[in-house]
Amino acid sequence: MVPHLITALNGPLLELESKVLEATPAIERWFRLEWQEHTPPFYCSVDLRNAGFKLAPVDTNLFPGGFNNLSPEMMPLAVQASMASIEKICPDAKNLLLIPERHTRNVFYLQNVARLASILRQTGLNVRLGSLSEEITKPTPIDLPDGQRLVLEPLARIGNKGRRLGLKDFDPCTILLNNDLSGGIPKILENLHEQYLLPPLHAGWAVRRKSNHFDAYDDVAKKFSKVIDIDPWMINPFFTKCTGVNFHERIGEECLQESVDTILKKIARKYKEYGIKEKPYVIVKADAGTYGMGIMTVKDASEVKDLNRKERNKMSVIKEGLEVADVLVQEGVYTFEKINEAVAEPVVYMMDRYVVGGFYRVHTGRGVDENLNAPGMHFVPLAFEHNSIPDVAAKPGIAVPNRFYLYGVVARLALLAASLELERTDPEAE
Amino acid sequence: MVPHLITALNGPLLELESKVLEATPAIERWFRLEWQEHTPPFYCSVDLRNAGFKLAPVDTNLFPGGFNNLSPEMMPLAVQASMASIEKICPDAKNLLLIPERHTRNVFYLQNVARLASILRQTGLNVRLGSLSEEITKPTPIDLPDGQRLVLEPLARIGNKGRRLGLKDFDPCTILLNNDLSGGIPKILENLHEQYLLPPLHAGWAVRRKSNHFDAYDDVAKKFSKVIDIDPWMINPFFTKCTGVNFHERIGEECLQESVDTILKKIARKYKEYGIKEKPYVIVKADAGTYGMGIMTVKDASEVKDLNRKERNKMSVIKEGLEVADVLVQEGVYTFEKINEAVAEPVVYMMDRYVVGGFYRVHTGRGVDENLNAPGMHFVPLAFEHNSIPDVAAKPGIAVPNRFYLYGVVARLALLAASLELERTDPEAE
Repeated sequence: MVPHLITALNGPLLELESKVLEATPAIERWFRLEWQEHTPPFYCSVDLRNAGFKLAPVDTNLFPGGFNNLSPEMMPLAVQASMASIEKICPDAKNLLLIPERHTRNVFYLQNVARLASILRQTGLNVRLGSLSEEITKPTPIDLPDGQRLVLEPLARIGNKGRRLGLKDFDPCTILLNNDLSGGIPKILENLHEQYLLPPLHAGWAVRRKSNHFDAYDDVAKKFSKVIDIDPWMINPFFTKCTGVNFHERIGEECLQESVDTILKKIARKYKEYGIKEKPYVIVKADAGTYGMGIMTVKDASEVKDLNRKERNKMSVIKEGLEVADVLVQEGVYTFEKINEAVAEPVVYMMDRYVVGGFYRVHTGRGVDENLNAPGMHFVPLAFEHNSIPDVAAKPGIAVPNRFYLYGVVARLALLAASLELERTDPEAE
Repeated sequence: MVPHLITALNGPLLELESKVLEATPAIERWFRLEWQEHTPPFYCSVDLRNAGFKLAPVDTNLFPGGFNNLSPEMMPLAVQASMASIEKICPDAKNLLLIPERHTRNVFYLQNVARLASILRQTGLNVRLGSLSEEITKPTPIDLPDGQRLVLEPLARIGNKGRRLGLKDFDPCTILLNNDLSGGIPKILENLHEQYLLPPLHAGWAVRRKSNHFDAYDDVAKKFSKVIDIDPWMINPFFTKCTGVNFHERIGEECLQESVDTILKKIARKYKEYGIKEKPYVIVKADAGTYGMGIMTVKDASEVKDLNRKERNKMSVIKEGLEVADVLVQEGVYTFEKINEAVAEPVVYMMDRYVVGGFYRVHTGRGVDENLNAPGMHFVPLAFEHNSIPDVAAKPGIAVPNRFYLYGVVARLALLAASLELERTDPEAE
């Protein structure tokens, strides 16, 4: 199933699709060469927005949940990608420790954990789950509705002087975090020098900043755009940031207003250049953070001045109670894809450097200019698996596999940006 | 769709399935470690026979045709595997030269070539087709029924002193043979030291011997059987060979009779051990050769003595007119899988070390003890793509993905054997 685009695909994006299809061997080779220089994250999901005239990543998640939302048909791709990754990281690995989110009541999230464990088992790893929750003091089974059983076990420092992390009777070569560390870096994860911790600690929201990611994405988008000769704006949203913002105490409002105004003007110029009639808007969100909290759609700079108490509260608290300090002001990208009249945006999943699946995030209660990652959303698997080799002969904008290929290319640009971002922010880099 | 097994799966094979599923992480790790020691062929297809009480490879093809018979849904797996392979072989490769079979009137075969070219293009390679046919003296377009167009071009030695192989204006890093060299090694392919020729010349039927492959498979099967604690016979057919056989001149008949007799007795002992009521049989086939010619089903040693002229003719000529000289006598493995009452056998396709798809070879006119690779066969894609992560909780013998996983494991054992075989027979090895 392909969602219906409410604006007919025409103009700039059709040209992008044509150029990408035409240049497929060059693009894939370009990625191949880039991956010789940079190491992809173990896994990653990217939220895309397709405005018909523009296709861009708006969020890159280094601790993807939602593997349970991928269609089962895509699992062999995930297993194969995971094999390629493990072979490079820890080729003789026998054991892998998976650390899920701390709060584990959410059945959907637990199904994601089960799916991940099953992929990793097929990769040739004994997988066990180590919990960061203080409530888990002994092996604790959790039964899922589909009959599967997960066992959460307490983490332990093991080995000589507790140099390693594992379970009481389980010494892993690799530790895979599926916990984004929004609540800070737990002491038990620190100073692990003999094992592979994936992704690294500085990928967690305790340290990570979206602005670093989009800085890196700027570079990637610019370089890629030269390969296929396009305006990088076609795949890249403008952004800037304000530091030291405190919504409660109304500190930093001027910076916000100026930033919003600057970005809105830049978008307006581009819209004019391409004859786009839509109204420019920006998204204001925490520079550190996730879970769709603290996100605001703004169409005029004055809006960020006149926030009422409720809006200020919404913006100032993100997951696990962190205060917002740095704020990202990013070009809003309309999503004109709809499934049954509900607004939809594609989310692409990758492992190692491979696209392994995706789904549409659909929200019946939200508009084309709003964040869809919010309560009430649901998921529709992307039909990547159908005829998924692009059809070069098809008319631009018509063929399903061609649209998905385009999604896969743009998502992989964000993946590459994540790789650069992690290199540049590595505290242990020389 | 899963073919119906006319014998209910019970006894030994059920135990094999259980053991393989239970040991999945250990098996996949075992493969991972083996692939650190050995390089998989670029691609490979393996014919399996499933007797219900035994599952074994009977033919390992290093120049697989039939990629067009895989379901399109499997293509992303093939692209991903091919990417992994190219990255290791020639990471900055831009161009790949594909050399198809010489005789190119067969539309099905040409669709296979088109499919392969499309996979390789998605891998990030410019793909062109170089022909070994003397009839191709200039770029020659061939239109396929589905609207695709292939262009066959004459091969040329290029570069300084003609050290490289390519086309007049095309210098490839990698040359992929889809021509099994039954007719001998063409001079134009010799002495290529700067480029990667895949598979190597000694994989071609001008040099290759099935007995070398099954020697290597013996070793692999033995080693693997220890990992999961099974009788290697469950996955390995007995075989022996006779050299210097000339059917026309009735030379070597005694060796044949003795070999047939020996193998039949060995099978009978195993059948007795496992309480199998079927009648043992052997397959007599050329040690070098392909295309299903020169293959005979024998249930009694006397049968190879009393060949009439027609049978002798059939056995003595294989593809492109080579005389049979060495003969393989191999345990016949019944195939008790049926699709709509027609006998079927699974064929599993691999690229690099990954299973990328497969199909059932089905023959309405052949029996459960006959070679199915013969005129009149047709193909039904294997449904690897459906729920293809094994279901450990399912009852043995019931779940589709479990049967396919088992096929994938045994096929990969044959792949590993091919890798050992090519190492051991490499004329340039020290």
